[in-house]
Amino acid sequence: MNPAFLQEAIEHATENVRRGGGPFAALVVKAGVAIATGANCVTATNDPTAHAEIVAIREACRVLGAFQLTGCDVYCSCEPCPMCLGALFWARPTRIFFAATAQDAAAAGFDDSLIYHQLALPPAGRAIPMTHVADPSARRPFQAWAARPDKVRY
Amino acid sequence: MNPAFLQEAIEHATENVRRGGGPFAALVVKAGVAIATGANCVTATNDPTAHAEIVAIREACRVLGAFQLTGCDVYCSCEPCPMCLGALFWARPTRIFFAATAQDAAAAGFDDSLIYHQLALPPAGRAIPMTHVADPSARRPFQAWAARPDKVRY
Repeated sequence: MNPAFLQEAIEHATENVRRGGGPFAALVVKAGVAIATGANCVTATNDPTAHAEIVAIREACRVLGAFQLTGCDVYCSCEPCPMCLGALFWARPTRIFFAATAQDAAAAGFDDSLIYHQLALPPAGRAIPMTHVADPSARRPFQAWAARPDKVRY
Repeated sequence: MNPAFLQEAIEHATENVRRGGGPFAALVVKAGVAIATGANCVTATNDPTAHAEIVAIREACRVLGAFQLTGCDVYCSCEPCPMCLGALFWARPTRIFFAATAQDAAAAGFDDSLIYHQLALPPAGRAIPMTHVADPSARRPFQAWAARPDKVRY
């Protein structure tokens, strides 16, 4: 853990608020070098997925020309929300460090804990109702996937 | 629920495998019209966040010029993974419909349930270790946010 990278994430998050964005930033570090940075730009880009970690992961993967963050560390100004945590698990960095906690975020009006709570509920009981529609062709995409010999797994 | 939209998502997901992508697709519908569609393009675009729902949400928000999917329904070929579920909660559509289940996805080799399980663990105990680093300036971005009178909440 290099505290300078965490400081950089915190400063970037603070600066991002001055630019009109949300108070979050993240840095991807490989072999001691910051290869990508991201700050929350949901409102500026009309993209609800443009959280700091998502922006940083996408940029780091662009730089690396890969869809995995193998051997990378991610420094976050704040504990990731469930969406970003899911994204980090798909990107598979080696380690994640964060400064502010989910409780700090909640106190500032960002209640990620609501979403953490929702994920633990059965789909039909969530605040946004999720309905499973049984369809005889539902597994067809997976059959096509299984049948493809040259597929690129991810 | 319009079964034609679910069929369209399933067909798009199947077609996406033929194009070399993952077996997933999603559709965003507003006022009975499909305004955006997305298919998994993680490997083609080197973007681990490019799941069908994320791609469809970003496209729908671009079309609407908004960072919320107010009044929209989302049709998914498969039950969303935790990242996509988090993204859906941030995008706030009205309803979500899905065809294949997380169990179907797991049987096809996409074990989102691992990530669902990881989210329920305390950060330090996860497969990718997440370390909270106490830093006296950790809350500075939130202080800047609180002090900004013209902030755009999201």
